Amino acid sequence: MMLKRSWIESANSAQTPFPLNNLPYGVFSVDEGDLRCGVAIGDRIVDATGLEAAGLLRPDPHADVLDAPYWNDFMELGPDAWAAYREALTGMLAENADDAAQDAILTYSVKLAEAELHLPFKVSEYTDFYAGKNHAFNVGTMFRGPENALPPNWLSIPIGYNGRASSVIVSGAPVRRPWGQLKAPDADLPVFAPCKRFDLELEMGAIVGQPSSAPVTVAEADAMIFGYVLLNDWSARDIQAWEYQPLGPFQAKATATTISPWIVTKAALEPFRTPTPERERPLPDYLQEPGPMLYDIDLSVTLAPDGKKATTITRTNYREMYYSAAQQLAHHTTSGCPMNVGDLLGSGTISGTGKYTRGSLLELSWGGKEPLTLDSGELRSFLEDGDTLTLHGAARGDGYQIGFGECTGTLLPALEDPYAR
Amino acid sequence: MMLKRSWIESANSAQTPFPLNNLPYGVFSVDEGDLRCGVAIGDRIVDATGLEAAGLLRPDPHADVLDAPYWNDFMELGPDAWAAYREALTGMLAENADDAAQDAILTYSVKLAEAELHLPFKVSEYTDFYAGKNHAFNVGTMFRGPENALPPNWLSIPIGYNGRASSVIVSGAPVRRPWGQLKAPDADLPVFAPCKRFDLELEMGAIVGQPSSAPVTVAEADAMIFGYVLLNDWSARDIQAWEYQPLGPFQAKATATTISPWIVTKAALEPFRTPTPERERPLPDYLQEPGPMLYDIDLSVTLAPDGKKATTITRTNYREMYYSAAQQLAHHTTSGCPMNVGDLLGSGTISGTGKYTRGSLLELSWGGKEPLTLDSGELRSFLEDGDTLTLHGAARGDGYQIGFGECTGTLLPALEDPYAR
Repeated sequence: MMLKRSWIESANSAQTPFPLNNLPYGVFSVDEGDLRCGVAIGDRIVDATGLEAAGLLRPDPHADVLDAPYWNDFMELGPDAWAAYREALTGMLAENADDAAQDAILTYSVKLAEAELHLPFKVSEYTDFYAGKNHAFNVGTMFRGPENALPPNWLSIPIGYNGRASSVIVSGAPVRRPWGQLKAPDADLPVFAPCKRFDLELEMGAIVGQPSSAPVTVAEADAMIFGYVLLNDWSARDIQAWEYQPLGPFQAKATATTISPWIVTKAALEPFRTPTPERERPLPDYLQEPGPMLYDIDLSVTLAPDGKKATTITRTNYREMYYSAAQQLAHHTTSGCPMNVGDLLGSGTISGTGKYTRGSLLELSWGGKEPLTLDSGELRSFLEDGDTLTLHGAARGDGYQIGFGECTGTLLPALEDPYAR
Repeated sequence: MMLKRSWIESANSAQTPFPLNNLPYGVFSVDEGDLRCGVAIGDRIVDATGLEAAGLLRPDPHADVLDAPYWNDFMELGPDAWAAYREALTGMLAENADDAAQDAILTYSVKLAEAELHLPFKVSEYTDFYAGKNHAFNVGTMFRGPENALPPNWLSIPIGYNGRASSVIVSGAPVRRPWGQLKAPDADLPVFAPCKRFDLELEMGAIVGQPSSAPVTVAEADAMIFGYVLLNDWSARDIQAWEYQPLGPFQAKATATTISPWIVTKAALEPFRTPTPERERPLPDYLQEPGPMLYDIDLSVTLAPDGKKATTITRTNYREMYYSAAQQLAHHTTSGCPMNVGDLLGSGTISGTGKYTRGSLLELSWGGKEPLTLDSGELRSFLEDGDTLTLHGAARGDGYQIGFGECTGTLLPALEDPYAR
């Protein structure tokens, strides 16, 4: 768990999210040019598409898998190719790299600060889980009381639902407050109006890098996962409350899901593996973990009202999950459901046990009854127009960290008339 | 609503599902050759890919949109191109077509009986609705009694959930009985075992042919729909019962969804438009229909035990739906959820009011309490291994019908050990 030193000096800082140990995969453009695959290192982005085209570093000798605005074709190559590419790139960036390697990288890299970042992969399908026990307990307590907080199936199944891949956007893209059907408890009929309880959900996203067409074990599922991102599953609580029975959330979760721009590979996170918490009820065999499948990743969320300073509203850790992404993926395949490269699995909201460790405003303000006080003095039960919400994540090693880049979005006001053209 | 006569004699029969009035779009191959776009007419398939490549009928003068194993690129062109192509093809197939047209068609067509059919479009995302009132009432009555049968939101929202696009298969592909978590009411813990209550759901599927990035009206939604297919949303009732609270069906619906191989265009169905039933509660403005948006399509289902004759187990009609696909699509966009070409919307199970008009075995056998007797004398509460289930659909005009082709699948036994490799 020591820092690997690079000849790119900015990558050797304990503060950079992108040391040589990380090498996360993203998609970038410069000056509105083509979208290209890139790898972050310190304050630079290595132009992986350029290195491939120049024949300097080819993931596949027979095909240009990086001549695309996404990493999906690279993922298709599979774990051996993933490992070989990472090793080769590590060699070219390590402090003892030869002159030819350094020349290649200097020719094919840009400053991170000058690049625009895009979705790093083409999202095939998106599934969101509900696998954080503290979150499920908090939400259940609000709606059904602490005795019936956890649904009867919760300790046996990584509960999940299919989300909407088309709504996944990259960090920085604004989010428009949605309209939807809202029904007050004492009203006879719903009204169609802008959402009043717009919220975040602090999650990690796992990216499926290999396909399956039959049920897979947890070990096989772990091997299929390519990497992880931060994920904010924006949620319209009032729309959800009225629509979600009996078939689950639908439009409440379809406005947007923001992910961080860098895919942090499983390889980079390997030193931070940690087991899921002790089981409170025996799991079926197919969900048993053969080893530690969660990761020790510090997470936090900041909220900045329009034009004001940001306040950290929560701090937690990915190891709070009851189910790992590998368990979720294994469960996802039990029915024979085919999984594809580019499928995205949201972990579910990650909450700790303390008040300021909760991963949603619903929990932080306890359904709006206990508004948060921000550093600016403003109160928040749910998000206000102009608020900028940012998720941060880092796995912390000895003198280095594995960062994800920000996962941020600003809430725009609802359209006055969504049907005006 | 009269038959349009073709020089292809088999298209003039009152029995053919594919008269000149229909011209449905599919994907076919012959002798394990390339997958090509085709149009059914009588007992033939017009090789639309071949006509395009030869310059004899080009939907887009500037690009080969049919040089693909799906109709998505054609759909991208939009309604004007859809209409122009249909008109041109109708001209080449009409009884007064000139010799050049007839030669072109004879050169570029194959016998339907000699072709293998494939998925007609690339399914982008799949949403399934719950918009048949009789079905919702039946299921609700079984679980909650007739007073609380319909959820409170049901008469205001076309309830839907996101399904799994990767599980959509074409008619004829077998379906493997899934494993899943099952919990007996008196058991403490679930078991992981093969599903015992595997069922069908008789539905129509609507195919989105134009994208949207903002909320759309019902009229706009109707214009975005390219066509319709028959759809069987195979359902594992016992898996569903244990998993679906609180976030909806997941693995219970992910084994397979079978669609018929021909996209019947909205243009072909135009004479059969019919309004949705009278509203029992006022709808929000955004769900108001500007005209008739359902279609008068006779539907039936046959069940054939392994090696035995088929029994018709239900007959109903698409006009039984409470919400049209256009209303569903309009609702789908309210949150700002982007819709894409190739999105598939399942109508929800279609049931009439009479016993043998119900669209699922769950309803037909009333939760297994009143097994059906098949013509072979066998009883059925749910599907048995080897059963072949077939959906049939036809809109009936004056001396002709608009058919969909069969939507069929045979249930294979569960794997003995889903993890054996």
